[in-house]
Amino acid sequence: MTSSADASYIALSGGVGGAKLALGLCDVLENPGRLTVVTNTGDDFEHLGLKVCPDLDTLTYTLAGLANLETGWGRAGESGAFMEALGALGGETWFFLGDKDLAIHVERTRRLRAGESLSTVTSDLCARLGIEARIVPMSDDPVPTVVETEDGPLAFQHYFVRERCRPKVLGFRHEGAEQARASSGFLDALAAPDLGAVIVCPSNPYISIDPILAVPGVRDALAACEAPVIAVSPIIGGEAVKGPTAKMMAERGIAPSALAIAEHYAGLIDGFVLDEADRAEAAGIAATGVAVEVTATMMTAREEKQALSRAVLAFANRRGAAR
Amino acid sequence: MTSSADASYIALSGGVGGAKLALGLCDVLENPGRLTVVTNTGDDFEHLGLKVCPDLDTLTYTLAGLANLETGWGRAGESGAFMEALGALGGETWFFLGDKDLAIHVERTRRLRAGESLSTVTSDLCARLGIEARIVPMSDDPVPTVVETEDGPLAFQHYFVRERCRPKVLGFRHEGAEQARASSGFLDALAAPDLGAVIVCPSNPYISIDPILAVPGVRDALAACEAPVIAVSPIIGGEAVKGPTAKMMAERGIAPSALAIAEHYAGLIDGFVLDEADRAEAAGIAATGVAVEVTATMMTAREEKQALSRAVLAFANRRGAAR
Repeated sequence: MTSSADASYIALSGGVGGAKLALGLCDVLENPGRLTVVTNTGDDFEHLGLKVCPDLDTLTYTLAGLANLETGWGRAGESGAFMEALGALGGETWFFLGDKDLAIHVERTRRLRAGESLSTVTSDLCARLGIEARIVPMSDDPVPTVVETEDGPLAFQHYFVRERCRPKVLGFRHEGAEQARASSGFLDALAAPDLGAVIVCPSNPYISIDPILAVPGVRDALAACEAPVIAVSPIIGGEAVKGPTAKMMAERGIAPSALAIAEHYAGLIDGFVLDEADRAEAAGIAATGVAVEVTATMMTAREEKQALSRAVLAFANRRGAAR
Repeated sequence: MTSSADASYIALSGGVGGAKLALGLCDVLENPGRLTVVTNTGDDFEHLGLKVCPDLDTLTYTLAGLANLETGWGRAGESGAFMEALGALGGETWFFLGDKDLAIHVERTRRLRAGESLSTVTSDLCARLGIEARIVPMSDDPVPTVVETEDGPLAFQHYFVRERCRPKVLGFRHEGAEQARASSGFLDALAAPDLGAVIVCPSNPYISIDPILAVPGVRDALAACEAPVIAVSPIIGGEAVKGPTAKMMAERGIAPSALAIAEHYAGLIDGFVLDEADRAEAAGIAATGVAVEVTATMMTAREEKQALSRAVLAFANRRGAAR
């Protein structure tokens, strides 16, 4: 196990929660260029003829300092002239695309159509925006999440944005996962001899992390990986900080708790980070065979993102040294 | 020949100059719904993965009351957040697409990719914007104008916008014209039994009107047409009101004059409208065998657009009655 300063790290991430931790990690790592943020692309969809990658964009904007911290998505100081004009033309307006935000969708779509991979386009755009960490899609192949609901199957963004997570969830499908290949950036990061830890960000396990795990070979690579795999709970005090995680758990008959998250990742993780509010669950989680770290996990202020990142890295280093 | 109030009319148009006359015609016609504005699509190009139709858009925005009257292109009250963000991502910024304007390109591109024709999309968008006149593309097939220059062949917008009409023009090609078919809206308007006149707007003859005339069957249909064909000179006092018409004429060894424009349309037109500034050329133009009308053709104010429209319609009606 290399020392923290030299090691490389992987973060598996969805959108907002993962981006917060990724930002904290970039702040506290001596060399943020050694962090690979592997991003869920199950949310990606084609809209208005444009390829929209919500989680990739949230990460990109967050790490570039361009994110709208109030909404949790989109860009700060955004305007809606395009959307208003589109509505006047009879176009679809249920998924808001801001004027600035449009640039990334138009440019990415153009380049993908020209035959470039999502990895290449993402890497170039991140470089343009001065992002030091590597943001890589989980796969360059489409693996769209389909939400099975009581209203029938729904494409993810139709469930998430158009229906505002209203329909009761029965399950999830990761379409095309069997044929998908993990991105080379993901595989390279997993194969790095100096990998210090794989951090599963406090993202929704079903719709942000499971799609990444559904890509063939990823579960095996994580199991074979010598570095510790550490998950951070997205549930605090029985509630999700943001998004439908708790609602989805309840609808699937699972009481929303840190323990339930740890159980969801059973066999995959070596360590689990939960909030002080859930300290009572620590023993139960430890009983599942993983190391447990209790700390403040709410990441509102930048300092909180950094403090949690330090705690996660220290925990990971202790786990790595213990192996 | 039906009376002016009942007749239908066709205007052949490029962008700015044609849009001005079309606006005037809409103002003064009892029923603007009987005006078909056949629009040059030789300027159309794919840019940033979007289908951009500059002349169609200028007409649409002008007749919808949305046009930027200062620039002559784009929309009033436009913003550039998209373009600025695109530049930061390394995208191409030489062709400005405003935030509002983007809506028409995105929506049109989406619908064309879904298999709809340019005519259908244009018709729907115009209806959405409350435009009474019919704006129809000359063809649903691409007929891109290539400008042959001393620097080699240039796609039209590369010549026009990127190079700002700098390279010396040797000639023009209308690519794909042989295979193109006139749009059904164009053909229907030409076949209308109550057609009162075909008005060739004061547009650039080479890059706005010739592409329309290059579509197979159009010249023959105009020649066979019982209604008078009336052209309005885009040259006033040896200069173009806007754009590179005079420069192109000079580069091709033609002294820019109303007479030269009339000669360019020889065999096609029955009547020619020129500005009072060029009254001295009237006799020479009449000697080519066309009727001549001298009036004020500068269309800055709305009233000037209307006055010229009235003059053109009255002239056309006299020509029609004389046949």
